[in-house]
Amino acid sequence: MHSLFDRFRRGELRLIRIEAFSDGVFAIIVTLLVLELKVPVLKDHASVGELAHHLLEALPKFVSWLISFIIVCKFWLNHHHILGLARHADYGMVWLNSLFLLGQSFIPFPTALAGEYPSNPLAVSLFGVVFALNTVLFLILQSYIVRRLIKPELAAHQDPRGMLKALIGPASYLVGVALAWVSVPLAFVAYALTPLFYITPPAPRRRVER
Amino acid sequence: MHSLFDRFRRGELRLIRIEAFSDGVFAIIVTLLVLELKVPVLKDHASVGELAHHLLEALPKFVSWLISFIIVCKFWLNHHHILGLARHADYGMVWLNSLFLLGQSFIPFPTALAGEYPSNPLAVSLFGVVFALNTVLFLILQSYIVRRLIKPELAAHQDPRGMLKALIGPASYLVGVALAWVSVPLAFVAYALTPLFYITPPAPRRRVER
Amino acid sequence: MHSLFDRFRRGELRLIRIEAFSDGVFAIIVTLLVLELKVPVLKDHASVGELAHHLLEALPKFVSWLISFIIVCKFWLNHHHILGLARHADYGMVWLNSLFLLGQSFIPFPTALAGEYPSNPLAVSLFGVVFALNTVLFLILQSYIVRRLIKPELAAHQDPRGMLKALIGPASYLVGVALAWVSVPLAFVAYALTPLFYITPPAPRRRVER
Amino acid sequence: MHSLFDRFRRGELRLIRIEAFSDGVFAIIVTLLVLELKVPVLKDHASVGELAHHLLEALPKFVSWLISFIIVCKFWLNHHHILGLARHADYGMVWLNSLFLLGQSFIPFPTALAGEYPSNPLAVSLFGVVFALNTVLFLILQSYIVRRLIKPELAAHQDPRGMLKALIGPASYLVGVALAWVSVPLAFVAYALTPLFYITPPAPRRRVER
Repeated sequence: MHSLFDRFRRGELRLIRIEAFSDGVFAIIVTLLVLELKVPVLKDHASVGELAHHLLEALPKFVSWLISFIIVCKFWLNHHHILGLARHADYGMVWLNSLFLLGQSFIPFPTALAGEYPSNPLAVSLFGVVFALNTVLFLILQSYIVRRLIKPELAAHQDPRGMLKALIGPASYLVGVALAWVSVPLAFVAYALTPLFYITPPAPRRRVER
Repeated sequence: MHSLFDRFRRGELRLIRIEAFSDGVFAIIVTLLVLELKVPVLKDHASVGELAHHLLEALPKFVSWLISFIIVCKFWLNHHHILGLARHADYGMVWLNSLFLLGQSFIPFPTALAGEYPSNPLAVSLFGVVFALNTVLFLILQSYIVRRLIKPELAAHQDPRGMLKALIGPASYLVGVALAWVSVPLAFVAYALTPLFYITPPAPRRRVER
Repeated sequence: MHSLFDRFRRGELRLIRIEAFSDGVFAIIVTLLVLELKVPVLKDHASVGELAHHLLEALPKFVSWLISFIIVCKFWLNHHHILGLARHADYGMVWLNSLFLLGQSFIPFPTALAGEYPSNPLAVSLFGVVFALNTVLFLILQSYIVRRLIKPELAAHQDPRGMLKALIGPASYLVGVALAWVSVPLAFVAYALTPLFYITPPAPRRRVER
Repeated sequence: MHSLFDRFRRGELRLIRIEAFSDGVFAIIVTLLVLELKVPVLKDHASVGELAHHLLEALPKFVSWLISFIIVCKFWLNHHHILGLARHADYGMVWLNSLFLLGQSFIPFPTALAGEYPSNPLAVSLFGVVFALNTVLFLILQSYIVRRLIKPELAAHQDPRGMLKALIGPASYLVGVALAWVSVPLAFVAYALTPLFYITPPAPRRRVER
């Protein structure tokens, strides 16, 4: 009864603090992203042309910032959805959640890398690898909740093909990773399009009226 | 029934997590603004005169910090007000909210730019463009909530001319944007005065007693 | 009835979001303070002596970090106390709260300044001026809540001499400000001792049993 | 009755705000850690080899980031556990909690130090000293809650040998501190293994059904 496995299933954790901690991490990530947009160093402080030139040159930074912001918001939304499925939390879920947040909190680094070196295929493909890994970490958390912690009244409405569909995400990011070695703009397009698969919740098999 | 449009109207989201996430983003933005106030590099570490000179030179940074702080607090307050009108949240609202937070989280960048280069009309006018865009993003979110998600008992008290009045905000910021090309201090005055239109809630048509 | 003054007294704000926003700001301030503790640049990466020397040289930064951390925690605690007195929030209170948070969020700047230039009397005295100003902003907020928003059952327990006692705080910080021009260590001692007046709640005139 | 000691035991604090403040601090710490992962400066922006070389060289930074992230998550989880034991909060608990958060918020500094100078025994051993100190601060907070504030129905389930077992943590970190002067990789291994003692809750003497 007190085996290692069992220890992770102890259910003394309140979902509200897990959500508060996770919401804090998500909120900080999306807001920290802007710190990578550095004020350019101008020779002539009053020169409109020089500032405009520097801002245009920093365009890839704005694009990578925008992509990461949308993707983290999407993860927040999906996270909100799956935590709403759980009837309570156990230690296993908390650690899978922490690993997922570890992946999320790493995102500012490849975002800065891809924004600084958009002509470097390694930098741009790392950007996508991190998104793919995050999606996998999310799917592991989701799978744990759906298998062990789901509210009984919601269990019947889960789509059994949900996990299969969910693999579209990592696959699509990995297409972007491959494209980075051919054409950076195409990779950015792949990264930007992928979250669109997830911006609305999975269609319920039977609509739940509330 | 499961059209794309309908998917955005699914209402399984709890307002409390949207508020927690948004409050986190607002709190981080106002606090990060201070990171742009850098400690000056002094040749003589003990020199009072040299430090005083550097602090006075950094005056535009303090002013832009102050303006952004007040404006973000104003947005937080207005956001608090409109989320209080909603009976629940749907995916459409969450995404409009995320776009609004995207705009908010961008504010530290033009704040730093205008504080660093107050003599550059492009830097100072960008500051106002970002505030005008944020107000527009806010109005779109407000309009969505008022049209689709408003609590029935509050619907009758909405001022139909509210949206028209609300356009005073972007218009006033854009006046500041134009003034930046004539006189930087006047632009700063326009930016600082605009939030004063919004520091109290819109007058209700009939006072709601609670 | 709809005079400017009256507009600030509209009471449609939930205390819980004001607390959430304030808690976020407090939490970020205390955590950002550590960013001023920079990793030193070593010539010999493996040299224990060189690293020890740099860490000892950075001692004033650790001291100013510690003082600011304790003082912000003290403000958080006092803030918690006075918001617990209010029966609800109005716009006047929210704006006074925002001004108070403005003062709080400024603290990392003079903390960094005093830590970087501990031999500069202006830097060290500014540190204390900011704490004195913050205490004044806090007292204004407290006074507004006690006069207008206090829960009826708590009103009788307020100490009428509370505001007078409260002025000990700014006075004590200003003693530190003056000492900074004579002896920096004495100023730091004054700053560090002042919060000790406030680390427990004001003694109630009659003990409230709960 | 109004002795200094008694003042700390006044019980007018709501646990929910203490948790909100603490959750905010934890969330910011884990997310700030990534800011130490700096984008490398490349001579040839498009060079895959040069970027790969810099990323491999930064490996100790990734390792120290990972260790600190897991350890802070572990502290968050243990903190969650002990605050769940308290029936309410008093000023003594709040100040012990603030001291604990002071220790937590310091973690990014030794993390950066050990990541930057992994060949420096002082840097690597400081990393472990800070973890050991944090564990001691946590144990003091835990002991205060268990002795004074515990919910009556939980008191019987506390393991009297819990504190003794808890000292394994600081002892294990201090082994790492000593190892740092012999072999840095061994020290990192000790730091990484220590939190594994605490990733699940202490076994209850009798299982509490909820």
